[in-house]
Amino acid sequence: MDKGRLEAFSDGVLAIIITIMVLELKVPHGDSFEALKPLLPVFLSYVLSFIYIGIYWNNHHHMLHAVRSVTGSVLWANLFLLFWLSLIPFVTAWMGENHFSKWPVVCYGLVLLMNAIAYSILVKVLIYHHGENSLLAKALGSDLKGKISIGIYITAIGASFIHAWFGFALYILVACIWFIPDRRIENKITDSNKINYNG
Amino acid sequence: MDKGRLEAFSDGVLAIIITIMVLELKVPHGDSFEALKPLLPVFLSYVLSFIYIGIYWNNHHHMLHAVRSVTGSVLWANLFLLFWLSLIPFVTAWMGENHFSKWPVVCYGLVLLMNAIAYSILVKVLIYHHGENSLLAKALGSDLKGKISIGIYITAIGASFIHAWFGFALYILVACIWFIPDRRIENKITDSNKINYNG
Amino acid sequence: MDKGRLEAFSDGVLAIIITIMVLELKVPHGDSFEALKPLLPVFLSYVLSFIYIGIYWNNHHHMLHAVRSVTGSVLWANLFLLFWLSLIPFVTAWMGENHFSKWPVVCYGLVLLMNAIAYSILVKVLIYHHGENSLLAKALGSDLKGKISIGIYITAIGASFIHAWFGFALYILVACIWFIPDRRIENKITDSNKINYNG
Amino acid sequence: MDKGRLEAFSDGVLAIIITIMVLELKVPHGDSFEALKPLLPVFLSYVLSFIYIGIYWNNHHHMLHAVRSVTGSVLWANLFLLFWLSLIPFVTAWMGENHFSKWPVVCYGLVLLMNAIAYSILVKVLIYHHGENSLLAKALGSDLKGKISIGIYITAIGASFIHAWFGFALYILVACIWFIPDRRIENKITDSNKINYNG
Repeated sequence: MDKGRLEAFSDGVLAIIITIMVLELKVPHGDSFEALKPLLPVFLSYVLSFIYIGIYWNNHHHMLHAVRSVTGSVLWANLFLLFWLSLIPFVTAWMGENHFSKWPVVCYGLVLLMNAIAYSILVKVLIYHHGENSLLAKALGSDLKGKISIGIYITAIGASFIHAWFGFALYILVACIWFIPDRRIENKITDSNKINYNG
Repeated sequence: MDKGRLEAFSDGVLAIIITIMVLELKVPHGDSFEALKPLLPVFLSYVLSFIYIGIYWNNHHHMLHAVRSVTGSVLWANLFLLFWLSLIPFVTAWMGENHFSKWPVVCYGLVLLMNAIAYSILVKVLIYHHGENSLLAKALGSDLKGKISIGIYITAIGASFIHAWFGFALYILVACIWFIPDRRIENKITDSNKINYNG
Repeated sequence: MDKGRLEAFSDGVLAIIITIMVLELKVPHGDSFEALKPLLPVFLSYVLSFIYIGIYWNNHHHMLHAVRSVTGSVLWANLFLLFWLSLIPFVTAWMGENHFSKWPVVCYGLVLLMNAIAYSILVKVLIYHHGENSLLAKALGSDLKGKISIGIYITAIGASFIHAWFGFALYILVACIWFIPDRRIENKITDSNKINYNG
Repeated sequence: MDKGRLEAFSDGVLAIIITIMVLELKVPHGDSFEALKPLLPVFLSYVLSFIYIGIYWNNHHHMLHAVRSVTGSVLWANLFLLFWLSLIPFVTAWMGENHFSKWPVVCYGLVLLMNAIAYSILVKVLIYHHGENSLLAKALGSDLKGKISIGIYITAIGASFIHAWFGFALYILVACIWFIPDRRIENKITDSNKINYNG
């Protein structure tokens, strides 16, 4: 089955998720500069979530680039990921409007954790479909970053019960880990394309 | 006429429908864990509707994969389906906010029923356009699942008048029937593609 | 210049316009069947606007199918059309919430009129770019339907001052004129494709 | 790496941004013509922002047309631009609802300035990736318009402190500069395509 519509649908959902979050930046009633101040925590949580959705879109783009075809299981694993991504605007707004207090930060972490788990399920389903010796499996490697992220999320959720800012700082850390482009994977995909088209 | 834009437009509408439903998960005012509790029924109805939109997208994807070209009638049959799908966020929110009380559950079922009817009209229009002996007609077969679904929806609407949870349970049942991938159809399409490209 | 992104962007905007209109169907507070009654005029105006957006998408799809390439002027003529289409959700909601009273019905007509004018500008810009003797110009013909529509819209706006339902009835009439597929144009495009690919 | 999904995702985000702005045109409670009057400044700022998003989509379309491939850095530079574009609906609504008073006009200018900077970063990243002697670099030239725009934005932000209308007038001026199609660039791209495909 063709991967084109899977990409188009995922792009659509991600584009909407990343954009509707900004609707939570409610237009303030006053017209002074001070009227913007209460929006600062909402804005901060918007920035973090924008980066997270950007990272997911980026990784999704890279991964599907190496994919040859999709199955029904892949479609559902992808929808499972989109479901958890669709909850990010909700927890982003809840966290921002409550100035990063304990429970909203914990729930934000739980949604990030579920996203990471859903993404690794999608990876596993794709590797199972392409075979352990496929170029995709080699390109994705041992998914070390994914495993480290899940570990940090769990630590962050626990740390949020001590102080919410510990959790928030760890969420930023995970974003930094992913933000730095993974040259190694990009190279492997480039190599594999060379093998595929020229070899 | 080309099917590309029909797919792109449908993907866009489905991506928006599946995403704007989450806007009904209104951010609670408090920051305690208890503040989330009143959202539970809204969340539950969101999950069910997300799965339903996912099933429709999945089936739409499969069906159009086997389609060769589209006509004006196909465009309108598709828009008729999109119209009823666009009402799902409304009945989802109404059902969730009223904790699955009778009339919202009945209306949710009516919208699902109209979606199922609209989908079977789209199937009929496509088969009429491709011919009764086309690979599409063979791949879709007798549309047994579609007919069973319509029967269960009607039963569910009636059962909701006795108790709303009867109706809700039957809606979950239909989702389960469709969730299990229809290997037989997928195989037939794969076969037909082989015939088409290799034979 | 390639027409692919023009189609993709237009599809995206039209998909969003057709879907956000449903957000004006505000979830009622009660859970009785009577709670839905006040929504009936909003629902009616939603149905009419859904059909109008569907017609525009359909015609846009047909017209661009016959287009070979686009210029900067085409992009702006298209954006001008999308601008007026983007106002349809606003006038739809205003008309529905005020139970089809005079001024909302007049403004709904004005927006439809501007859409029709914007569409005929887009047609003229495309014909100018492709040449008077192009297959596109022949396929579009004298745009009789477009001219009749503009005439009816002007009549409808005037008639709304006598009674709003006169205007509303005429808007439905225009929708009916366009809803009936224009076999002649579809055939010409099919012919022109034959000429183009086979001749 | 392929540029297709970058275009699709950007089109999606831009289509949503341009459309959700219209949601700020809140449906008035009355049904008289006078009920529309308070919406006039919101409508005016909507028109200006619609034109700005249109210009960005247009330029993005042109630039990526000349692009051969994209890297991780390009994806992030593009997301940085989309981030600042996503803030346009917020400042548009704030400016319109406060009848173009000082601080909203200043903030509108700041967001436009950041968009212009983000766009020129994207240009630089693309030229760096394609090489200084690439057709892309030649087609984009010295980006004189971009530099002039940044200068006018800074002037406009300063002028807004004297009177907000000075700033607003300068924002309209920049839109006019860009609205006039840049024939020279379009020609160069056309030439470069000729070189590429025919030479």
